Amino acid sequence: MTAEIICVGTELLLGDILNTNAQFLSRELADLGISVLHQHVIGDNVERLRALVTEARARSELLVFSGGLGPTEDDLTKETVAEAFGDTLRFDPEEWDKILAFFARTNRTPTPNNRKQAMVPVRGHKLPNAHGTAPGAWFEDEAGHCAVLMPGVPRELKAMWAEDVRPALEQRQNCVIHSRTLRVLGGESSIATKVGELFHSENPTIAIYCKVGESEIRVTARAATADQAEAACMDRIALLRQRLGDNAYDVDVPGLEYTVVRVLRERGLHAATAESCTGGMVAERLTNVPGSSEVFGYGFVTYAEAAKTQLLEVDPALIQQYNVVSAEVAVAMARGAVNASGAELAVGITGLAGPGGALPGKPVGTVYLAGADRRSHRTWVMRLNLGGYQERAIIRTRAALYALDLLRRMALELPVPDAELLEETF
Amino acid sequence: MTAEIICVGTELLLGDILNTNAQFLSRELADLGISVLHQHVIGDNVERLRALVTEARARSELLVFSGGLGPTEDDLTKETVAEAFGDTLRFDPEEWDKILAFFARTNRTPTPNNRKQAMVPVRGHKLPNAHGTAPGAWFEDEAGHCAVLMPGVPRELKAMWAEDVRPALEQRQNCVIHSRTLRVLGGESSIATKVGELFHSENPTIAIYCKVGESEIRVTARAATADQAEAACMDRIALLRQRLGDNAYDVDVPGLEYTVVRVLRERGLHAATAESCTGGMVAERLTNVPGSSEVFGYGFVTYAEAAKTQLLEVDPALIQQYNVVSAEVAVAMARGAVNASGAELAVGITGLAGPGGALPGKPVGTVYLAGADRRSHRTWVMRLNLGGYQERAIIRTRAALYALDLLRRMALELPVPDAELLEETF
Repeated sequence: MTAEIICVGTELLLGDILNTNAQFLSRELADLGISVLHQHVIGDNVERLRALVTEARARSELLVFSGGLGPTEDDLTKETVAEAFGDTLRFDPEEWDKILAFFARTNRTPTPNNRKQAMVPVRGHKLPNAHGTAPGAWFEDEAGHCAVLMPGVPRELKAMWAEDVRPALEQRQNCVIHSRTLRVLGGESSIATKVGELFHSENPTIAIYCKVGESEIRVTARAATADQAEAACMDRIALLRQRLGDNAYDVDVPGLEYTVVRVLRERGLHAATAESCTGGMVAERLTNVPGSSEVFGYGFVTYAEAAKTQLLEVDPALIQQYNVVSAEVAVAMARGAVNASGAELAVGITGLAGPGGALPGKPVGTVYLAGADRRSHRTWVMRLNLGGYQERAIIRTRAALYALDLLRRMALELPVPDAELLEETF
Repeated sequence: MTAEIICVGTELLLGDILNTNAQFLSRELADLGISVLHQHVIGDNVERLRALVTEARARSELLVFSGGLGPTEDDLTKETVAEAFGDTLRFDPEEWDKILAFFARTNRTPTPNNRKQAMVPVRGHKLPNAHGTAPGAWFEDEAGHCAVLMPGVPRELKAMWAEDVRPALEQRQNCVIHSRTLRVLGGESSIATKVGELFHSENPTIAIYCKVGESEIRVTARAATADQAEAACMDRIALLRQRLGDNAYDVDVPGLEYTVVRVLRERGLHAATAESCTGGMVAERLTNVPGSSEVFGYGFVTYAEAAKTQLLEVDPALIQQYNVVSAEVAVAMARGAVNASGAELAVGITGLAGPGGALPGKPVGTVYLAGADRRSHRTWVMRLNLGGYQERAIIRTRAALYALDLLRRMALELPVPDAELLEETF
């Protein structure tokens, strides 16, 4: 099946908003095995819209619309598409009641124009909108070509897609689709060397999306039943995990902090943070996870040298001797955080995020990261060389990611790559 | 002048990347007073591309392309557009030398295909690429309709646009354009009630972009000279500031934390943070500003009650009596942070970010924010009701924004709206 995406809205043509709907729909259609040949953005202009719809309908079997379902007079997408697909519209009292109820709930009064939104296809059918006033519409012509109209608000569009449009297209494609996302530390090229040939698979498909310091691998399977699709996904995820080892840290989580909080909770452990160059980023990420208060109680943002001494009992002589950006100070910070908080695990981070402040032998991007474990009295310490990334925000984000990973590895008793292990008591 | 934007790339049709180029180009063309009638995304397919270019050239005076300039055989955008615009391509030894030098610098070897990238228009002209291998191209037909081809990599496209394409279009439009962005606390509707009628102005144009808890107002002026455009911008900014008062906090800064660091530095002041529900977000934002170590030394992330007592000397009896989420505890946290850090100013934040944990009379989203000033021994405290936003991340982001604003207001000795002022010594 071939498809075109048509987004209607002057605000897109003016660049006032980013067209995230086009990406969402393209990805979903690709998952369904439907080829998207064109994406279009067009304003609320009937002549231009009619010309585009006529042309696209002749060329492609499926037209997917977002936007243009608003109540104002120049929102004429539904009328124009109905005409092109040889359909007409009727007033739907049920939809009108929903619109009236929506306005009542939000203490507003509908205008006569809002009645337009209650018009639905006569031969085609309406698509309920769970999150807004405008129902969507599905038109189909004699040749079996379809047009699906959805609202432009991303939340409304996504819900309508998931609840009605995707299931209908799955049925037409005679399949169900299912996706799982594996999160992996490291960049695309290091991952590609280990699993690159799996990326050519057609079912499940595998797509990789690069984030800062890590990647998402999205596995999407098509199958006759939901169970088969899920099983095909999980098989492929298992194969990926086997090849990628413990850098593959979790499935379907928003980020590494969620994994860290889960692992700490499962093991009954607590973590503390002592941050200099990351300035609270590790604490902020951990505490963004609901329920993190069970595993995290103390975060020390010791940006000043005096703060390190006062809050973490870092010996000023150590700072004097080795400089504040050093393995010795990172170790003292992590141990100080364990001792001051009573947590089993803590990380200490000190480094140069730039742009200024480079030291001899320590360019911008030099970060020392230490992890202390009160149970074993072990301390790991590593030097990160993040200067290649130049940007302050990127250096900080990468350092925070390494710190979260160190917490995960200490909690799970996994090896810590590239770290020195210190065994002295603290 | 009318324009169409054509983005070439299979990765866009598959939804692998978000089309930020289309938004960037749309906004820039709108600033120039050029009407964008269509945006298109199309794959590397010569027939479909030829049909689209023919149609668009007949309809619009300017076609702006991104992508399709790669070295592989299916990158045929330049060839196809040249043909449609009645032009041909020639091999440019200068561009080829640049490509060879680029490969040498990055330790790679060019393939014969890379020679395609050194082909430039015969009647039109090339556009130098400061950041990559592929030069852009400018074609013009007998009727004066133009096609501008730029690379798809956003960094390369933006540089080429700013250095060559925009100046050429300004000349055609007989103007220069200049933009300034005013940042204002508050949402679109509260701003619109004060300055709404200015939004209808045609020159300078005013556009508003909503962020979490604040808005950006972008003022863009067209004039005959750069000085006139700048003056027109600044006049309008002054008028906006006058109407919006001290909620309008700065011009051309990435965020409120930059303003706070600048103001603290200008006044020789220091700030400390005591955070519970925001979990380090205020410290993280402050320390993301280069040079913030001059004004910020101590951040306390006291997520646990014991941490509040131990690090900030919050009296356990106070927590017992008023609950940890209370004005009294926020005040004690802010004062404790001033006393423990020696900073002149500190903020204390305690609240319920959810999703669980609601208390009687304190639903999720209830946040207490206090600010203590060591110089005057004054303390401000306010209750924020952020429950309407539901999402944990949004509640935290808004609370952090209020905290940064409180630091700004204390430093500048501005009134603090909706706060209770306590005058007792601490």
